[in-house]
Amino acid sequence: MSKGITSRETDYSQWYNELVVKADLAEHSAVRGCMVIKPYGYAIWEKMQAALDKMFKDTGHSNAYFPLFIPKSFFSKEASHVEGFATECAVVTHYRLKNDGTGNIVVDEEAKLEEELIVRPTSETIIWNTYKGWIESYRDLPILVNQWANVVRWEMRTRLFLRTAEFLWQEGHTAHATKEEALAEAEQMLNVYADFAENWLALPVIRGRKTENERFAGALDTLCIEALMQDGKALQAGTSHFLGQNFAKAFDVKFTAKDGKLDYVWATSWGVSTRLMGALIMAHSDDQGLVLPPKLAPIQVVIVPIFKTEEEQMAIGALADTLISELKSKGISIKYDDRDTHRPGFKFAEWELKGVPVRIAVGTRDMQQGTVEIARRDTQAKETVSQAGLADRVEQLLIDIQQQIYNKAAAFREANTVSVDTYEEFKRVLEEEGGFVAAHWDGTRETEQLIKEETKATIRCIPLNNPLEQGTCVRTGKPSIQRVLFARAY
Amino acid sequence: MSKGITSRETDYSQWYNELVVKADLAEHSAVRGCMVIKPYGYAIWEKMQAALDKMFKDTGHSNAYFPLFIPKSFFSKEASHVEGFATECAVVTHYRLKNDGTGNIVVDEEAKLEEELIVRPTSETIIWNTYKGWIESYRDLPILVNQWANVVRWEMRTRLFLRTAEFLWQEGHTAHATKEEALAEAEQMLNVYADFAENWLALPVIRGRKTENERFAGALDTLCIEALMQDGKALQAGTSHFLGQNFAKAFDVKFTAKDGKLDYVWATSWGVSTRLMGALIMAHSDDQGLVLPPKLAPIQVVIVPIFKTEEEQMAIGALADTLISELKSKGISIKYDDRDTHRPGFKFAEWELKGVPVRIAVGTRDMQQGTVEIARRDTQAKETVSQAGLADRVEQLLIDIQQQIYNKAAAFREANTVSVDTYEEFKRVLEEEGGFVAAHWDGTRETEQLIKEETKATIRCIPLNNPLEQGTCVRTGKPSIQRVLFARAY
Repeated sequence: MSKGITSRETDYSQWYNELVVKADLAEHSAVRGCMVIKPYGYAIWEKMQAALDKMFKDTGHSNAYFPLFIPKSFFSKEASHVEGFATECAVVTHYRLKNDGTGNIVVDEEAKLEEELIVRPTSETIIWNTYKGWIESYRDLPILVNQWANVVRWEMRTRLFLRTAEFLWQEGHTAHATKEEALAEAEQMLNVYADFAENWLALPVIRGRKTENERFAGALDTLCIEALMQDGKALQAGTSHFLGQNFAKAFDVKFTAKDGKLDYVWATSWGVSTRLMGALIMAHSDDQGLVLPPKLAPIQVVIVPIFKTEEEQMAIGALADTLISELKSKGISIKYDDRDTHRPGFKFAEWELKGVPVRIAVGTRDMQQGTVEIARRDTQAKETVSQAGLADRVEQLLIDIQQQIYNKAAAFREANTVSVDTYEEFKRVLEEEGGFVAAHWDGTRETEQLIKEETKATIRCIPLNNPLEQGTCVRTGKPSIQRVLFARAY
Repeated sequence: MSKGITSRETDYSQWYNELVVKADLAEHSAVRGCMVIKPYGYAIWEKMQAALDKMFKDTGHSNAYFPLFIPKSFFSKEASHVEGFATECAVVTHYRLKNDGTGNIVVDEEAKLEEELIVRPTSETIIWNTYKGWIESYRDLPILVNQWANVVRWEMRTRLFLRTAEFLWQEGHTAHATKEEALAEAEQMLNVYADFAENWLALPVIRGRKTENERFAGALDTLCIEALMQDGKALQAGTSHFLGQNFAKAFDVKFTAKDGKLDYVWATSWGVSTRLMGALIMAHSDDQGLVLPPKLAPIQVVIVPIFKTEEEQMAIGALADTLISELKSKGISIKYDDRDTHRPGFKFAEWELKGVPVRIAVGTRDMQQGTVEIARRDTQAKETVSQAGLADRVEQLLIDIQQQIYNKAAAFREANTVSVDTYEEFKRVLEEEGGFVAAHWDGTRETEQLIKEETKATIRCIPLNNPLEQGTCVRTGKPSIQRVLFARAY
């Protein structure tokens, strides 16, 4: 089976689709819009989960688990929330199948639910209905809970990892005694996401605020991190919502404050999903395959012996044993690929496709000279180095690669973020160059919508700490107080 | 709020239900049969997951993720499988809600699925449909994959952890080139489960084989671990199935063997679930609350300072800081409970209820004498010991407690396993004493069914390596070649 993939230049979209499948990350399932996450892809997701979970716990959160199903009536309690999700809900209506007597398995119409159940697209409603029973006074607050779960949003056009009917995610749901505390929590979690994106995914992100149009259904304020992909399109990589008292009011969750007064509880929610896998792939990979930041690579180093005779294989194997134990003692994950069913060139291409950050090749001449060949995946640079001190060198190299991948993505974003002041230029940049476009906007929903219809660009965010600057809207010429970031987006 | 719970003697079932809720492990949700797993309960489940996940990986397995939904037609392909699960399936029939124009949210009848989707009760069918695309030759085998997931079985009578409509579990699904390899895998995973039960849950288990009646729907052979609860009822704690070529045939999954011949692939599946939480609670806990084996306790040690003045609080706090850092350096998890809103007696009762294995109390006299009071949760024994060398002592104590909890459960099972030779005695033991009853059985489904109807006892398993022994069936007097283990069961 050929491992070659379409180049980014030829067809970026096709490149992505092929890469996800050929690198064994995921594939389409037989169920419309649902994916199978394969072991290699899932191993990356597990590393993301472990890192995020630790960050959540370090900031005082605990995990819990709430039901997959949400009664339709709950779902309807927060008006803008149901409006946002109603058109993409999988609905359970029956609880039994039966044999129809001719050998066919059919839905048993006698087992119809009195009230339909929605497969959770997000869990605010079921969780706030639960919190009602947990909260009486300020002593019960804050509640700092996270859930790792699957959710379902019935999307019509799906793409592996980026947009699937079922996806995996985490959703934090916190309850607070004060507005200030909830606002601080929403901001804290945005910062956790940004740290994770930058330090683990090696992905520079812009922290910002969504416009009203793009806000989460039910939120008063949605904070987000936005990243730029190699084709110049933006990708929202995580969101953190300040929900005000909306859900507390919908589910009647009040608490007695220190001063004895009854008030509704303040809320946040925040989430990232398997969509991060899509961001990871699209931001860094190349025409040879995946480029994985070492911190998230399931295999960080592959060692490929190059031998002709069994004797040579044995000798290199003995060296490899030593190397492997030295690298493992540093916590580095290693694969020793001594399959005799494939040639070295085939193996090199396979591990490039799979994005292993460092490849070490050892041949007979290396054995004579006390050397190995090291190749780094990100730059594809090769170097012949001494076997002595190799573990230290590899350890440092992994750190360098992590940093270099980040730097490259940061330089790309830098080069693809421009300020424009006319609508002509705005449209030209979007059409010819892509990237983030910083432009003045008059602050209305209508103009935002108009620009979207005319250019397919949306306001990705209003960056936090955005400098105020007098100007005129690129579309309407009306006054504006700041530039906002536009882009076409995933 | 009183933390007192019904005693086991008074009403074992009620004791369990109250304990689960009052110890903050889980509660019933607003969705029929579905539970909310609260942070403290989920923290125990996370520890179980981490230990099991490591054991799976150490035996060569990887994690992956398959869709939540299974098309009805897939589900129907393996006849005995669908027969086993059809009556408890949640069925998705629509994918959209709408506003009916009067403000009510209703199911949009225009968004009806062409084929209904089943919320997975187990994933053999969707996984074997996927494996078909992964397997061509013996080189693609074995596939050793596990999934951590939620599943739904529409149970009519539910109990927290023991039997819920939605539960969390892991399901391993492996594919092999030979029958022998699949049989060895099924046995290996049974042994992993038994090791986990004994070494982590501190729960002695019997490894055995299910009778045809009790086999997993679609399996040729079901291996199981069975444990005894304090009320004398048995609980199936894990199962490992040899599926033969049933699913490979249903989904047409063939491979080319080394000799070039085409054959169907051999399969196993194996799972444990949040039911283990129920087993953990029922096996060890007492009338004061949970008794947690230290290896699974989210908090292993609680330190309670006993003070009157702020000065005393400060002095004890300084000692506690030292103790905590010593204990943490040994990997022990600690809670320092210096809340000034509650009295020490209240705290003692609360941590007993929550099953914290070791409590350390430090008062003013202790400060003068260089001592602390240590109380172990399992035996409730207290001891005043020197502050010097405390960390080493606590470390050893946690090991002792883990062992002692196991020993106690093993002794209980030993005392509650009897061999009987007459049906009168069989019924009397079940009625008056409970426990495992080893009795001769004629090997037929009919007799097994009859005994179940007459005594509510089922054959829990035929122990592996069961000694053969000539005898006569307790119910029919027909010849029998071995005793099998009967019990009433959860």
